[in-house]
Amino acid sequence: MKNSFGNAINITLFGESHGAGVGVLIDGIAPGIKIDEDFIAHQLTLRRPSGKISTARREPDEYVIQSGVYNGYTTGAPLCIFIPNTDTRSRDYTPGLPRPSHADLTAHEKYHGFEDYRGGGHFSGRLTAALVAAGAIVIPALREKGIYIGTCINRIDRIGLSDIPTDREGLLAVAESDYGLTDDYAIAMMKDTIELAASEGDSVGGVLETAIIGLPAGLGEPWFDGVESQIASAVFGIPAVKSVAFGAKDIETMRGSRANDAFIVKDGKIATATNNSGGIQGGITNGMPVIFRTAIKPTPSISQNQLTVNMQTLEETVLGVKGRHDPCIVPRARIVIDSVAALVVADMLTVRYGSDALTTK
Amino acid sequence: MKNSFGNAINITLFGESHGAGVGVLIDGIAPGIKIDEDFIAHQLTLRRPSGKISTARREPDEYVIQSGVYNGYTTGAPLCIFIPNTDTRSRDYTPGLPRPSHADLTAHEKYHGFEDYRGGGHFSGRLTAALVAAGAIVIPALREKGIYIGTCINRIDRIGLSDIPTDREGLLAVAESDYGLTDDYAIAMMKDTIELAASEGDSVGGVLETAIIGLPAGLGEPWFDGVESQIASAVFGIPAVKSVAFGAKDIETMRGSRANDAFIVKDGKIATATNNSGGIQGGITNGMPVIFRTAIKPTPSISQNQLTVNMQTLEETVLGVKGRHDPCIVPRARIVIDSVAALVVADMLTVRYGSDALTTK
Amino acid sequence: MKNSFGNAINITLFGESHGAGVGVLIDGIAPGIKIDEDFIAHQLTLRRPSGKISTARREPDEYVIQSGVYNGYTTGAPLCIFIPNTDTRSRDYTPGLPRPSHADLTAHEKYHGFEDYRGGGHFSGRLTAALVAAGAIVIPALREKGIYIGTCINRIDRIGLSDIPTDREGLLAVAESDYGLTDDYAIAMMKDTIELAASEGDSVGGVLETAIIGLPAGLGEPWFDGVESQIASAVFGIPAVKSVAFGAKDIETMRGSRANDAFIVKDGKIATATNNSGGIQGGITNGMPVIFRTAIKPTPSISQNQLTVNMQTLEETVLGVKGRHDPCIVPRARIVIDSVAALVVADMLTVRYGSDALTTK
Amino acid sequence: MKNSFGNAINITLFGESHGAGVGVLIDGIAPGIKIDEDFIAHQLTLRRPSGKISTARREPDEYVIQSGVYNGYTTGAPLCIFIPNTDTRSRDYTPGLPRPSHADLTAHEKYHGFEDYRGGGHFSGRLTAALVAAGAIVIPALREKGIYIGTCINRIDRIGLSDIPTDREGLLAVAESDYGLTDDYAIAMMKDTIELAASEGDSVGGVLETAIIGLPAGLGEPWFDGVESQIASAVFGIPAVKSVAFGAKDIETMRGSRANDAFIVKDGKIATATNNSGGIQGGITNGMPVIFRTAIKPTPSISQNQLTVNMQTLEETVLGVKGRHDPCIVPRARIVIDSVAALVVADMLTVRYGSDALTTK
Repeated sequence: MKNSFGNAINITLFGESHGAGVGVLIDGIAPGIKIDEDFIAHQLTLRRPSGKISTARREPDEYVIQSGVYNGYTTGAPLCIFIPNTDTRSRDYTPGLPRPSHADLTAHEKYHGFEDYRGGGHFSGRLTAALVAAGAIVIPALREKGIYIGTCINRIDRIGLSDIPTDREGLLAVAESDYGLTDDYAIAMMKDTIELAASEGDSVGGVLETAIIGLPAGLGEPWFDGVESQIASAVFGIPAVKSVAFGAKDIETMRGSRANDAFIVKDGKIATATNNSGGIQGGITNGMPVIFRTAIKPTPSISQNQLTVNMQTLEETVLGVKGRHDPCIVPRARIVIDSVAALVVADMLTVRYGSDALTTK
Repeated sequence: MKNSFGNAINITLFGESHGAGVGVLIDGIAPGIKIDEDFIAHQLTLRRPSGKISTARREPDEYVIQSGVYNGYTTGAPLCIFIPNTDTRSRDYTPGLPRPSHADLTAHEKYHGFEDYRGGGHFSGRLTAALVAAGAIVIPALREKGIYIGTCINRIDRIGLSDIPTDREGLLAVAESDYGLTDDYAIAMMKDTIELAASEGDSVGGVLETAIIGLPAGLGEPWFDGVESQIASAVFGIPAVKSVAFGAKDIETMRGSRANDAFIVKDGKIATATNNSGGIQGGITNGMPVIFRTAIKPTPSISQNQLTVNMQTLEETVLGVKGRHDPCIVPRARIVIDSVAALVVADMLTVRYGSDALTTK
Repeated sequence: MKNSFGNAINITLFGESHGAGVGVLIDGIAPGIKIDEDFIAHQLTLRRPSGKISTARREPDEYVIQSGVYNGYTTGAPLCIFIPNTDTRSRDYTPGLPRPSHADLTAHEKYHGFEDYRGGGHFSGRLTAALVAAGAIVIPALREKGIYIGTCINRIDRIGLSDIPTDREGLLAVAESDYGLTDDYAIAMMKDTIELAASEGDSVGGVLETAIIGLPAGLGEPWFDGVESQIASAVFGIPAVKSVAFGAKDIETMRGSRANDAFIVKDGKIATATNNSGGIQGGITNGMPVIFRTAIKPTPSISQNQLTVNMQTLEETVLGVKGRHDPCIVPRARIVIDSVAALVVADMLTVRYGSDALTTK
Repeated sequence: MKNSFGNAINITLFGESHGAGVGVLIDGIAPGIKIDEDFIAHQLTLRRPSGKISTARREPDEYVIQSGVYNGYTTGAPLCIFIPNTDTRSRDYTPGLPRPSHADLTAHEKYHGFEDYRGGGHFSGRLTAALVAAGAIVIPALREKGIYIGTCINRIDRIGLSDIPTDREGLLAVAESDYGLTDDYAIAMMKDTIELAASEGDSVGGVLETAIIGLPAGLGEPWFDGVESQIASAVFGIPAVKSVAFGAKDIETMRGSRANDAFIVKDGKIATATNNSGGIQGGITNGMPVIFRTAIKPTPSISQNQLTVNMQTLEETVLGVKGRHDPCIVPRARIVIDSVAALVVADMLTVRYGSDALTTK
C-alpha cells in the first residue's frame, strides 16, 4: 500500500530529499535479529555516491535507530531508522519548472502544489538510503540461514559486462564489491562509458542481474502474490526502474522444448537440469536460484539544456538542470535492489514459517 | 495478498482446473456499474481456445453471477462470478510425475501433497477465464470515462508483428480483434509460426504490448504502489509471464538526452513531446498513454518426451505430456492482460476519486 | 477490508438474502485440514431458525464447496463455499420504505439506490450461514490442537442465564447444545421471555459470553492488532452486535488491587491467580482462557407498526414489518460468534506459526 | 495490521517508553491539510499527566515532524512525527519480575526475552502521545468540514459523572476542557475518587463516552469494516480499554419497539426520532451522531504489594511497583480516544471521497 510493501513484514519509506531527513519503518520484524552496525554502515557506503561517476553530493549517511532495537537485537516491535539530511542545497531547485522525466510534474498533479518539490522531495533517490539500511537489518539473518543475494551490472548502456554467479563465494564477492563487478576490465569499461556520457552533459542507463540462492522450495503464493509479483512490485518502487525480467534472458524467444527445465535427481533430491525458470514455477520457489534482471533508465538529470514548461504560466522554456547528480545510477542501484530483495525474502519466510522465522536460535 | 490484488477494489481468484469450476470475487466495486452480459460473453470468447493454434478443450464458459448485481447494475456489494467446469478429463494427469516448468512440483512443495494436481489445479490458466469476466465488468465503465485499453501481439517467437496504437479507434480495433492483431499478414505469420512449432510437438512464446489511454494525470502512489508496481504485480500473476517492461523499448540503452520526455504545451495543457516514460513518472501517471510490454514464455506443455522425476519414488523417468494444450498462449493471454490492466485502473481511480468513482451518473 | 477480515487468512463474505445465495471465500487457509461434512451440516443446523422462538423461514442450507478442497482435505488454495437461496419471498419487501434500525436507509445512502434491498440484501443476517460454514472448516482443526471455543447465553433481555464454563467438557457441552445453554430451567426462562415478546409483536436482545481455551501464550500483536482488536473487529461485523467486552464483567468498577491478576506458579508454569484480564494483556494472550461478552440489540424487525419515511416522496408513513423474522436472534447468534472467534484464532495461529500452522500432521 | 490501522490512511505507532522516543507514521494523508502547531501542542498538553491525579513523570512532549510537511501544509507524502524521550528512569524497572496485569509477561512470551521491558517498552501508554499528535493533524481539517468529536468522563469507578453532548458548542467545550468534564462538581467528585484510591496505593478505572457529529450518511462498509468494527479495532488498541459499546446504554435490555429508531422528516431530510443505534445501522453512518462508550480498567500499576513470579527462576515473590504512575488514566485517555476516532473518520472519508477528501480547498 502506498509507500509500503510486504505481507507479514511491512516496510514503509518516508522523508524528503531536502527536508529533515529520510527514514524507514519496519513493522512485523522478528525479535532476536542481531544488529550489525558495521554492516549497516558498510551497505550505506556502497550506495553512497563516489568518484567521478557519481554526484558530488556527499553525506555521511549517519543513521539513527529510533525504535525496535534493545541490547543489540531487534525486539520485534516496529523498527524505525532515520537518516537526517545534512548537506542540502535547495537553491538548485526552481519551483514551477518541472525537470523532464522526473516526477516533478506528476507530483504536482497528484498533490496539487502542496508537494515538497526541492530535489524531488519524497520522490528523490535519496530515500533509497533508508531502504538500504532496512535491508542491512535482515541480510545478516538471511546469510545465517544460508540465503545469499547479490546483484551485478549486467549491462551499461549497450555494453555487456557480467552475469551473476550463483555460488555462495561468487555472490558474496559481488555483493561486497564496489560496483557489483569483480572484474577490473569490466569496471574500466563501465567507468569509461559513464565518464564519456558525463563529459557530454549526458547520462546512461543499464541492466542489473540479481541472484538469490539458498531459498527453500515452496515460498510465495499462487497468482498475485507469487515471487515474481512480490519482487517486481517492490523493485519497480525503486526510481528509474523500467523493466523486471525473471529467468533465462529472452526466454520468450525459446521453443518450449528448450525453455523447459527438466527434472533430475541431484544429491538425493529433485532438482532441475537447467534453470530457465529462474527458480520459480507458478509463482512458487523450487529451490533453484531465483534470477532476475532489472533495467534502469538513464538518469533524467542531465546538464544539457532541455525543453520544459512553466507550470504557473504555461510558457515553454529551456531548463539546464544544475543540482548535483549521477550520470549513471546503475552502480548504486544494485545495492538498493539487494536490499529490497532481502526484505521481500524475509517477508516470504515470515509468511511461511511464522513470526519467529528470522529469530536467532 | 495471496490470490488477491487491489487496494480499494480487491479481486480474488479461486477454483481449480478439474474441480467444480473457477471464479472471482470482486470486493469494493462501485455501485451502479451497468452489467453488459453480451460484452462479458464476448470477452470470454476472445480468451477461449480456438482453431488449430489452441488446445482442443472446448467449454462454453457459461458464467453465473452469484452476488453483487441487481436489476442489471452492480450494487456495491461483493460481486462473485463462478464459471462451472463442464469438460474435464482428469485421466490425462498422472499424480507423482511433475511436468517440467509447470507448477506441479512447486505446488507439491508448498502444499505437501494436499494440492489438487489435476490439470494444474489452482495454478491452471483456466482461472484466467474468471479474470476476464471480472475485467469485463469494469471495461465498459472505463470506456464511458474515455479510458481505453488494448493489447497487441508485439512478437511471436523471434518475429516482430505489431506495435500498439495509442488512438481510440486503433485501440478498440485491437481490443476487439480475434488475436490482438488487425493486419492479415501479421496474423498469417503468427499462425504459421505457431503451427510449425505445434507440428513438431513444440511450443512458442512471445511479447504482448499494451496501451492504456485517457487516464487522468496523478494516478498511482509514490514508491511501492506506483503504477508500474501495481500493474507488474497483477500481470506477473498471469501464468507464463516472465517480464514486464514500461515505456520505450530498450530505454536502458538510450542516453538521457534522448530518453527524457521534454515538456511542451499542447491544446493549452502540459504534455510531453515524446513518451519514452510510458506515461508514468515517479510511479504517477502524467496523462500520456501508459505503455507496457509483457513477455510470455513458451507453453510448458509440449507433446515431446521430457525428463522428469517421480515425486514418490524419486526415480527419473520420461514424460509425454498428453492432455490438451496450446502450442502458444500469447494470443489468448492478451485478453487476460487487458482485463487485469482494466481492474488495476479501476482500483487506482477508486483510490483517487472515492468509492463512487465508477458509478454511472 | 470491507467484507473481509484476517491477516494471514482472509475471510470474505458475499451474497444477498434474496439473490442467488450467500457465500464465503477463505484465502490463505492451510493445506491438509480434514473436512468434516457432518460437522459443517451440524453447525449450520445450530444457526438455523427453529421453533416458535425463530423466524418461520426454513431453508435446508445446502452448501456447495466450490473450490479449495480435494480428497476430503483443504488444498491450501482459496476455499469458496456457496449456499444457494431456495425459499425467498421478495414480495414481503417494499422498496422505498426503510425499516427502522435496519440497514435499508444506510445502504441506500451508501449505494445510491443500486443496492439489492430485498430482505436486507447484502446486510441480511442470512449471510452468517456462510460464516458458520467457514468456521466449521477450522473448528475441528483447532480442537485437534486442544483449542476449544464456546458461547453461552449470558442474558436475555434483563434476565441472567448462564456464565461460560472454561473447562473442555463444559465448553463442548455448550458448543453443541441447541441454544448455548445446558440448563433446562435457563432454557425455559429464555423461551418464555422470547415468546412473551413475540406474542406482543415485539423483540428482545441479550448478551452472549464466549470462552476460548487452550490458546498458547504470545498470540496477537501490540496496539491495533491485539487480540481484543481482532476479535472485536470481526464480532462487530455480525449484525445487531452493539458492544464487546473482555475479561471480568464491569472490571472498570474494580480497584486495581482487585482487578489485577497476580502471577503464580501452577504445574511448573507461570499462570495467573485470577483471570480478570480475560486471558489478554497488552493485546497478547497469556495462556489463560480468553473471555468476552457480546451484547446483541433486540431484533429490529417487529410486527408492531412503526413510523418511517418514504425515501422517494419523503412522506412519513406507518410500516408494519411483515416478512418472517426472529423475535430474538441471540440463541442463533452464539454459533456465529463461535465461528468468527474460531476464524480469528486460526488466523492468529497462522501469523505466529506460519502457513502450515493448521495442517494435519 | 500489527501496529497499524486504517484502510486509505495507514497510521503506525512505534517507539518505546525508555528508548529514544515514540513516534507515528501516517501514510496516505491528503495533501494540503494546514498544520496547526499550537493545536498539536495543546492536544499533547491535554494528554500529559498533571497534578495529584497523575504520574509525577513530566516531559515537555516536544515533537518533531520528520517528514510530510512543507510550508505549513501536509504534502501528501508519509508524515512522520517523533517525540524524543527525555525524562526516563530505567532503574525503576526490574527485568524478570512481570507486573501483574501489565504486558510484561505476554511481551516476554511473544518476543522470547528480546523485548525492551523498561517501563513497558513498546506497550507503554507513553506511545499514545504520538497517537494524539497524529490526531491533532486531522482534527482541524475535520472541524473545517463540520465534523466535531468529543469524549467525556461518563463514570469514574462506580460514580456517574457526565453524558456527552451532541451539539457543536457542547462538544467543543468538552474537547477543550482539562478532563473531559465541564461541570465543577463532577470534576471535584472525580478528583476525590481518584485521590482516595491513590492515598491507599490503589487505582481506579472508568467509562468514557464519545460523540462524533457532522458525519455524512453512507460512511463505513458492510460486515467487517463497518463503523463499529473500525472504531472498536482502533480503540481496543489503546492500553487498558476492555470494552466498547455503541448507541444507547444497555440497548440489549430494551424491547425492539423501544430500541428501534423511527424515521422522521426533519429540515426536509430523513432523520431518526431517537438515536439508540448511535448513528450506525448495518455498519454504515446514517447522519445522526455516532455515540460510543469505552470502558477503561483500573491502572494496573499500584504501589500496594502484589504477588508475581520471577520469569527466570520461576519463584513466587512480592512486587511493589514503584515507578511513576497514574492512579487513574481515564482523564488522559479521553484525548487519546478523540484522536483515534478522528483518524478513523479521516480514513473513512478518504475511502469514500478519495485521496483529496481532506485537502483544504
